[in-house]
Amino acid sequence: MINVVKVGGGIIENEDLLTQFLESFAKIPGRKILVHGGGRMATTLAEKLNIPTQMVEGRRITDDAMLEVVTMVYGGLANKKLVAALQSLKVNALGLSGADGNVIKAHRRPVKEVDYGWVGDIDEINNSLLQSLLDNDVIPVIAPLTHDGKGKLLNTNADTIASSIARSMAQLEETQLVLGFELDGVLKNPEIKTSVIPEITPELFELYKQKEIISGGMIPKLSNAFEAIQDGVLAVKICNAVSIDKAISDEGVGTTIKK
Amino acid sequence: MINVVKVGGGIIENEDLLTQFLESFAKIPGRKILVHGGGRMATTLAEKLNIPTQMVEGRRITDDAMLEVVTMVYGGLANKKLVAALQSLKVNALGLSGADGNVIKAHRRPVKEVDYGWVGDIDEINNSLLQSLLDNDVIPVIAPLTHDGKGKLLNTNADTIASSIARSMAQLEETQLVLGFELDGVLKNPEIKTSVIPEITPELFELYKQKEIISGGMIPKLSNAFEAIQDGVLAVKICNAVSIDKAISDEGVGTTIKK
Repeated sequence: MINVVKVGGGIIENEDLLTQFLESFAKIPGRKILVHGGGRMATTLAEKLNIPTQMVEGRRITDDAMLEVVTMVYGGLANKKLVAALQSLKVNALGLSGADGNVIKAHRRPVKEVDYGWVGDIDEINNSLLQSLLDNDVIPVIAPLTHDGKGKLLNTNADTIASSIARSMAQLEETQLVLGFELDGVLKNPEIKTSVIPEITPELFELYKQKEIISGGMIPKLSNAFEAIQDGVLAVKICNAVSIDKAISDEGVGTTIKK
Repeated sequence: MINVVKVGGGIIENEDLLTQFLESFAKIPGRKILVHGGGRMATTLAEKLNIPTQMVEGRRITDDAMLEVVTMVYGGLANKKLVAALQSLKVNALGLSGADGNVIKAHRRPVKEVDYGWVGDIDEINNSLLQSLLDNDVIPVIAPLTHDGKGKLLNTNADTIASSIARSMAQLEETQLVLGFELDGVLKNPEIKTSVIPEITPELFELYKQKEIISGGMIPKLSNAFEAIQDGVLAVKICNAVSIDKAISDEGVGTTIKK
């Protein structure tokens, strides 16, 4: 069983939360892969360099200058910080962008209404490389960068990468996708942090959408989760990043998405 | 036979030279490892961020802010640029800092006359990881960063890393060290670019030092080369980075350092 864990930028930019997350991640038994974001760190560096950040529907427009920023922040600062910290916790982490070992091949997103610039849509995951690293007790730590095979890196959403990796690994062995963020799960009432919905099925998802219990950014996250399950991923957990290990071992912690 | 190739920042910051170097590197047959610098790129980014660069005897003083800069530039920008470019040349490159897979363990340099800050002195190379990557036709591309095993990355000289890796790999299989830079080899007369010394033995090295034919920064480079050979490295080549493959295949190209 592989756990593909995604952690967002909101956690890795906060020293306290990051430490708690990493300790929790280190406790997950067995085979695991970490996928991280880092968007807020990129925005901070871009500001310092007077490079304007332009977002369309939550997605970063990535021109040449912004591609350099995200390469430095995702591939360098965020990735190496996580790897060094995991090594200190005796987790044999190894950082990868999609170009490394050709692990995530992508193409530049075609221009429709919006030109997102150097943003990648994923074509293929090199799951045999990931499996061979896991076989050698190496834990892959994936930065949200892919490549086009023609020498260009591409900025790619971390949730999409995590879900693509989980689907691809699921072709080889049992795989679960775990989305760690700042809340304890999907909430029934956003005002009440403890109102976690324990389990969401496709039927409940439709119902909650109708009743507007689930809305906004949670809709694409959940749609993505259901697609992963359709493609063979065993389950998707949405939970607090600081208690990932508990959410994995205990059905009652976090929100579980099942068929 | 493994070729451990080091390429300096002067090459990777120049698009033309970089392209020529990468094409030459791609042509090297068999097992190979690339170690790169990136100091000038780090200085450029530090300037843009108003972080002062302080050098003592050619070594960068690395405080907290400078450590972030070199992590972004060496581990992110330079490393991923090289990896993506090599992938486009069908070389299955995979970038590593010393923290990744615990490939280079180091400790912070003790303070004597100078406090270099977060600068690492190498303790150990994980040569079995490098060997297993090579066995899988993966070409390691190493950034000049090591780690202390306690969560800290350390800025480490790329020449020293290349030489340490070559010595460590030489314990496992025949290994050659190749230092690529802007000149065609060690010159007898710095004014005449074609005055390459074809071979330097320990005796010739002593003679050339006495006669001041070899001086300045070339002395530590060569001392380092002779130490590598003492430790079992087959030969050291000092040559133009844009014709690395020719220097490897032809005894007459570049400067060869032998026992």
